[in-house]
Amino acid sequence: MLKKRHGPIGTAPATLIPHLIDGVRLSSSIRIVEYQREQYLDKTSTTIEEIEFPLPSDRVTWIHLVGLGDIALLRSLGNQLNIHPLTLEDVVNTGQRPKIEITADYIFLCSQAVSLDAELTPSSEQISIFLGKNYVLTIAERDQYDYFKPVRERIFSGLGNIRSSQADYLAYALLDTLIDHFYSIIEHVGERMESLEDSLLKDPSSNIARVMHEDRRSLIYIRRLIWPLRDILDDLLHEADEFISPKVKIYLRDCYDHTIQLMDLVESQREISSSMMEMYHSSVNMRTNEIMRVLTVITSIFIPLTFIVGIYGMNFENKAADGSTLAWNMPELHHPYGYLGVIIFMLLIAIIQLIFFRKMKWL
Amino acid sequence: MLKKRHGPIGTAPATLIPHLIDGVRLSSSIRIVEYQREQYLDKTSTTIEEIEFPLPSDRVTWIHLVGLGDIALLRSLGNQLNIHPLTLEDVVNTGQRPKIEITADYIFLCSQAVSLDAELTPSSEQISIFLGKNYVLTIAERDQYDYFKPVRERIFSGLGNIRSSQADYLAYALLDTLIDHFYSIIEHVGERMESLEDSLLKDPSSNIARVMHEDRRSLIYIRRLIWPLRDILDDLLHEADEFISPKVKIYLRDCYDHTIQLMDLVESQREISSSMMEMYHSSVNMRTNEIMRVLTVITSIFIPLTFIVGIYGMNFENKAADGSTLAWNMPELHHPYGYLGVIIFMLLIAIIQLIFFRKMKWL
Amino acid sequence: MLKKRHGPIGTAPATLIPHLIDGVRLSSSIRIVEYQREQYLDKTSTTIEEIEFPLPSDRVTWIHLVGLGDIALLRSLGNQLNIHPLTLEDVVNTGQRPKIEITADYIFLCSQAVSLDAELTPSSEQISIFLGKNYVLTIAERDQYDYFKPVRERIFSGLGNIRSSQADYLAYALLDTLIDHFYSIIEHVGERMESLEDSLLKDPSSNIARVMHEDRRSLIYIRRLIWPLRDILDDLLHEADEFISPKVKIYLRDCYDHTIQLMDLVESQREISSSMMEMYHSSVNMRTNEIMRVLTVITSIFIPLTFIVGIYGMNFENKAADGSTLAWNMPELHHPYGYLGVIIFMLLIAIIQLIFFRKMKWL
Amino acid sequence: MLKKRHGPIGTAPATLIPHLIDGVRLSSSIRIVEYQREQYLDKTSTTIEEIEFPLPSDRVTWIHLVGLGDIALLRSLGNQLNIHPLTLEDVVNTGQRPKIEITADYIFLCSQAVSLDAELTPSSEQISIFLGKNYVLTIAERDQYDYFKPVRERIFSGLGNIRSSQADYLAYALLDTLIDHFYSIIEHVGERMESLEDSLLKDPSSNIARVMHEDRRSLIYIRRLIWPLRDILDDLLHEADEFISPKVKIYLRDCYDHTIQLMDLVESQREISSSMMEMYHSSVNMRTNEIMRVLTVITSIFIPLTFIVGIYGMNFENKAADGSTLAWNMPELHHPYGYLGVIIFMLLIAIIQLIFFRKMKWL
Amino acid sequence: MLKKRHGPIGTAPATLIPHLIDGVRLSSSIRIVEYQREQYLDKTSTTIEEIEFPLPSDRVTWIHLVGLGDIALLRSLGNQLNIHPLTLEDVVNTGQRPKIEITADYIFLCSQAVSLDAELTPSSEQISIFLGKNYVLTIAERDQYDYFKPVRERIFSGLGNIRSSQADYLAYALLDTLIDHFYSIIEHVGERMESLEDSLLKDPSSNIARVMHEDRRSLIYIRRLIWPLRDILDDLLHEADEFISPKVKIYLRDCYDHTIQLMDLVESQREISSSMMEMYHSSVNMRTNEIMRVLTVITSIFIPLTFIVGIYGMNFENKAADGSTLAWNMPELHHPYGYLGVIIFMLLIAIIQLIFFRKMKWL
Repeated sequence: MLKKRHGPIGTAPATLIPHLIDGVRLSSSIRIVEYQREQYLDKTSTTIEEIEFPLPSDRVTWIHLVGLGDIALLRSLGNQLNIHPLTLEDVVNTGQRPKIEITADYIFLCSQAVSLDAELTPSSEQISIFLGKNYVLTIAERDQYDYFKPVRERIFSGLGNIRSSQADYLAYALLDTLIDHFYSIIEHVGERMESLEDSLLKDPSSNIARVMHEDRRSLIYIRRLIWPLRDILDDLLHEADEFISPKVKIYLRDCYDHTIQLMDLVESQREISSSMMEMYHSSVNMRTNEIMRVLTVITSIFIPLTFIVGIYGMNFENKAADGSTLAWNMPELHHPYGYLGVIIFMLLIAIIQLIFFRKMKWL
Repeated sequence: MLKKRHGPIGTAPATLIPHLIDGVRLSSSIRIVEYQREQYLDKTSTTIEEIEFPLPSDRVTWIHLVGLGDIALLRSLGNQLNIHPLTLEDVVNTGQRPKIEITADYIFLCSQAVSLDAELTPSSEQISIFLGKNYVLTIAERDQYDYFKPVRERIFSGLGNIRSSQADYLAYALLDTLIDHFYSIIEHVGERMESLEDSLLKDPSSNIARVMHEDRRSLIYIRRLIWPLRDILDDLLHEADEFISPKVKIYLRDCYDHTIQLMDLVESQREISSSMMEMYHSSVNMRTNEIMRVLTVITSIFIPLTFIVGIYGMNFENKAADGSTLAWNMPELHHPYGYLGVIIFMLLIAIIQLIFFRKMKWL
Repeated sequence: MLKKRHGPIGTAPATLIPHLIDGVRLSSSIRIVEYQREQYLDKTSTTIEEIEFPLPSDRVTWIHLVGLGDIALLRSLGNQLNIHPLTLEDVVNTGQRPKIEITADYIFLCSQAVSLDAELTPSSEQISIFLGKNYVLTIAERDQYDYFKPVRERIFSGLGNIRSSQADYLAYALLDTLIDHFYSIIEHVGERMESLEDSLLKDPSSNIARVMHEDRRSLIYIRRLIWPLRDILDDLLHEADEFISPKVKIYLRDCYDHTIQLMDLVESQREISSSMMEMYHSSVNMRTNEIMRVLTVITSIFIPLTFIVGIYGMNFENKAADGSTLAWNMPELHHPYGYLGVIIFMLLIAIIQLIFFRKMKWL
Repeated sequence: MLKKRHGPIGTAPATLIPHLIDGVRLSSSIRIVEYQREQYLDKTSTTIEEIEFPLPSDRVTWIHLVGLGDIALLRSLGNQLNIHPLTLEDVVNTGQRPKIEITADYIFLCSQAVSLDAELTPSSEQISIFLGKNYVLTIAERDQYDYFKPVRERIFSGLGNIRSSQADYLAYALLDTLIDHFYSIIEHVGERMESLEDSLLKDPSSNIARVMHEDRRSLIYIRRLIWPLRDILDDLLHEADEFISPKVKIYLRDCYDHTIQLMDLVESQREISSSMMEMYHSSVNMRTNEIMRVLTVITSIFIPLTFIVGIYGMNFENKAADGSTLAWNMPELHHPYGYLGVIIFMLLIAIIQLIFFRKMKWL
Repeated sequence: MLKKRHGPIGTAPATLIPHLIDGVRLSSSIRIVEYQREQYLDKTSTTIEEIEFPLPSDRVTWIHLVGLGDIALLRSLGNQLNIHPLTLEDVVNTGQRPKIEITADYIFLCSQAVSLDAELTPSSEQISIFLGKNYVLTIAERDQYDYFKPVRERIFSGLGNIRSSQADYLAYALLDTLIDHFYSIIEHVGERMESLEDSLLKDPSSNIARVMHEDRRSLIYIRRLIWPLRDILDDLLHEADEFISPKVKIYLRDCYDHTIQLMDLVESQREISSSMMEMYHSSVNMRTNEIMRVLTVITSIFIPLTFIVGIYGMNFENKAADGSTLAWNMPELHHPYGYLGVIIFMLLIAIIQLIFFRKMKWL
């Protein structure tokens, strides 16, 4: 589940708490990509001191910061780019619900980058995107999967529109990449659900219930992350005219359609999953019913027969102590065809029961 | 399920990926129907080079392109008709949620044509419709069932309004045909559900659960395709005055009513299906209950009786090794009416139990 | 279920397909009632040729057409009253969702008249009402129950406001009558549900599940017919000022309140029905539980006892072939109080079990 | 359930049908309370002839009419106060959904006064309130619990604002009293649900299912009555400026908050009740599971043992008719330690099974 | 559950009923904190007489009143600060749904402070906050956990913005603290649910059902308290410009985002909880199914075998009283390989059954 990181109750607003591992502050690393139509520059592992502010206006500067352990660095960046302290708090307190803030200086987008972890359950990492007039600042918690690699490569290769466009197009490309990740997760869940469907009726083991529950939780989780994306894109399209050019808006509308489609997919899968759960229930009940039928048929046939053979296993004496015959005590045992008669009688009982069970459709 | 076709994560926007089968690009074929009030022209298997651009304004030109393997052809068509690259991407990346885009040059409608496949489950194929001032361009993935045949025949026969109307009426007629297909699917599902209802209580086999689940999935699937149609028609009615004449709007309003009715039907069927699922559950439970009743009655009657006959099957000696009588060891066995007494005692027990079970309404 | 009648896929719009029975077109009959404050005229079984168009403006003319087999008649009427061909198609293609169309010449209302069929399940018949300036045209499929008889009798008797009012009041009176029919259906379903509630816990037979399912289907069906009525009345109240006088609007508002109340009733009954279904489920489960308790108690008591008596039914010899005593082989059988001891031992076991079951509250 | 009283289908609007008991019209009684700041007048059992119309404008007149059997009286009152015939019909046809009508002469409020009947299920009675400029007219079906007694006593005592306020404050006070009654009902249901929660897991008898169903039905019933109250208060606050002074609006806003809170409580209780129902289901299933475990353990242990002792109860002869030994026929029976061996073997089987069941956590 | 405190039905509005414990009015205590940028003043246990009205406008005065037993004190405070009597009633009648009232003199916020009680179920206490131009008045029922301690300490320490801000910032800080408490409760419930998930499949004891039900009730309870908070913050942001400065609005927007996130968390947890409930159900059913399988397999194998050994335990005589052989009476018993044959026959039956059960996947 998405857990919001936050300080203790009553912490003053805009307090930045560094991310620690075993009490040690995580280091932060900066990578800067600058580009214009003709050329690009890729500076890895730079420090904030090496960046010249204000950022040059004749090119697009993409500052990519990974790691949230160095609060001083964040504050310094925030000061240079005029970022509100509360916004910096949102950057550091990861686990935020995706949101957008449009200010006079920048647009702040906070989204979650999803990926499948080792056990194939979806996990997410908060990515903060700041879009300024001539820069994009991206801040990631760990950037586990180097989410923005395809975009960087498109910049380096110079293919497509990206090098001839402004910072708004770069922000679009980054957002589009994050949304693409959702598709792959949802498709993964969808495929797992389809493979479950087959085994549901064949072999409804209790393991299936667990997998279905996990899938549902994944869908609830993903939906929580996608829903706000729609509002974010809506705001980008209608409230951010100062930062977004009409040309890029066409691309963002495409993104918007994608989030609608994602929502659509998640909702469908949730409904199918509900239907599967019900099918699973009835499948288990049906199997119990079948087992009961077998039990009932076998028991109902043999219990009365066992009773009958029990009767003739009784030891009533047909001779009194004085040698006289006790004629009422089990004369059948001494009849020449007693055994045959009992066997035939039992066969009749069994046949009648079989006919009855066949009629009840229990066989 | 409707699966969106798309490139790998981070693909540049407006990248067109041709449809392949076994690595071979699918060929594309073009059919052109031109008509005006007095005459029509039907050119099958033409090439793009044979089409003269700009298209003549004194007649309606209907370009019907089947197959998405020839990207160059698509690009060329796109250039000639001024179609935005992102829209072409939507055409090629099939599995889109139905949508509408209204531009200065054309209206782009993307819908799904539904049909029943061999196993009678609904499948769909994306149909893209471009409505220009004097042309309609339709692009289909495979056009498996020649969906637009009835419209073509109405053009050829010259009956109805179609020949005396403009391109907007043609677009309406095509859309109306696609919507008609939904009716036949929903009716098919509805009939199957009705036939299930009868067998639900009579013979709740586990197969029924599977069929019900499939029907629900079909309904979820269809609903996903119909919902956006309503919005599309709403936009056509209110936002597309430049392309749609008031006369055709009356027809589109009829279409709109049809989509409302389709939604209505799907929702009703979903609710009935839920109710059926519950009835199925209770039917299975009820049957288990009945089986248990039989098991319990038979077992409860015969188990105690078997115990009693077991008692008199015990081999306690009533004569000690020295020949003296052990009076306490099973004297019943030597009583002249011992056997009769036991039989009567067991009859009494059975009768009392039968009365009890009758009172409990288990018989 | 409400099934929409329609032509084959791709049929040209506004095609009218006559209703047939065994291939024979159903005949249509016309009844005309004309009235003004002082007098009225009732012409049954007239033909369209006998009607003088334009209809006189000094009185209200109510044309009541039953039967949809005579397409020529419909077309002729449509021409005289200036009815759009698509609207005529809606009249003939019965099974429409209730709807309203307000044109310059008339208001078209399409509603469903509900009634209980022989098996007491609700069925419906489409009634089309056209309200013009000085006429009302009603078209029914079969008019099975002469739905509008009470209105006709109020006209003939001259009681109430109807004779002194215009066509709008007549349309209101007809609509009000159709809505009254919904009340009687819902009350019937409500009463059946109440009688079910009593038998639910007493005797949860599988038949009850079927009846409950039928009731729910009825409610789904009725709701589908009432929901659009609300929108129709809303439109009549706010969009139809040219046809509806302020005086009649007060009456229509009353109608509107009735549809709200109907919706309210249907929703409540649906929720109660859901709750009943759950109670039914738990009632069946509870009964299975009770049956299992009896089975378990009886089996648990007698199975061990049967085992014990089985032990003493074994035939181990305590005398070897050479006549020597095998002291370890079942000496109990030769003990003077062996039988008594076993009986007492078994009684003890049974008593301990009874105490245990009483403690578990299974008895 | 709230059942709307109404005439037969097709009854002319505004027809008033008197309430009868055993064919006898119920009598109606009138009580009039007039007050101004300094004094008040209480006239019980007056007739309509004793009331002077128009009502005096220097004081507030509260006419309280109980009983709906005297149609002439109602009509006469209606004429004097200029009440629309359709509104009078709403007064007589009790079982109305709460509603409001704002006319030029009066505000008509129709609400339901709830109370617990003898079996502690909520029942309701329709109370109609007319608020004119200087009067309030309240009409009750039977006024079973003298709902407005506290208000009357506040008038007589002269405490609070009521004597120094106008008719709008009186109407507020009456409405507030009716809303207070809802609180007591909801609290009663809430308390019963809480007491049920305890017994749910301890002793899930089938009686609990019935009580839970009744509580849910009560909640559905109450919700149906409260929902419209919210709309009524909304209208009173925003559409009734001619009758409601700003001072009284502050009080009505308080009332509005109460209805919101009531809705809130009802919704919460409905959700808790759903959750309880599920807990009940799983509790019953869990108990069945426990019973099955006991049955299975006992049966599985003793059935094989009984089979074994059965083997050694077989009567195979080890001596042929000619006295020769049949060595293969049950030599165990003649072994000196045969009995001991079998007993030990059976003990082993039982111990192994106990270990297995313990491992499966069935013991 | 949140229970609204209120007087008996029909109590006059604005009646204040003191909180009693064992009939004794609870005492009230006042603590006043005054601060401006440079200094602060902390007066505990003051009386209302010590407060000078009007409050000084050059600093922020925070009056914190605990205990609702002293009605006279409340009235006196209300008079001094011009608080409407109905608002005072809301303060005293605790258990209010959170709400906001914006008047010309103050903003009244009524919220619930949540905390975990001894049994770890959430409980709440009503906190009323009045924000005036230069003061904040907070009234708590008992202030069990000294909820506002962190804020007071931030004032005393002078860190952060609080000392340099106005009363609106103080109100924000108090509200923010209350919202932080919700986070800790929701996280607690979330953690408990996660730990439940693990034990669900392993050991679905009936205790789990109870805990799950409690968690759901907690979530319903919390949701009821958070929902209105959103509306309150919305109103603070858009309707309270006279009291809230633009600077503080940025902070309140942050609060608003938090309530959205809280709602989001609660909804997700509710859905996961529903899914868990279903998994629990199917887990119990699956276990019953497993138990039944064991019972059926063992019974089905041994019951027929026991019948067979019963046959050969019958005592049919193969010698008549006159010494002649009754050849039809159980000749098997005298056959030299009779015993072996029966044993082998039974083994065959058991093996066939095991194969069958294996094929049915019951083993």
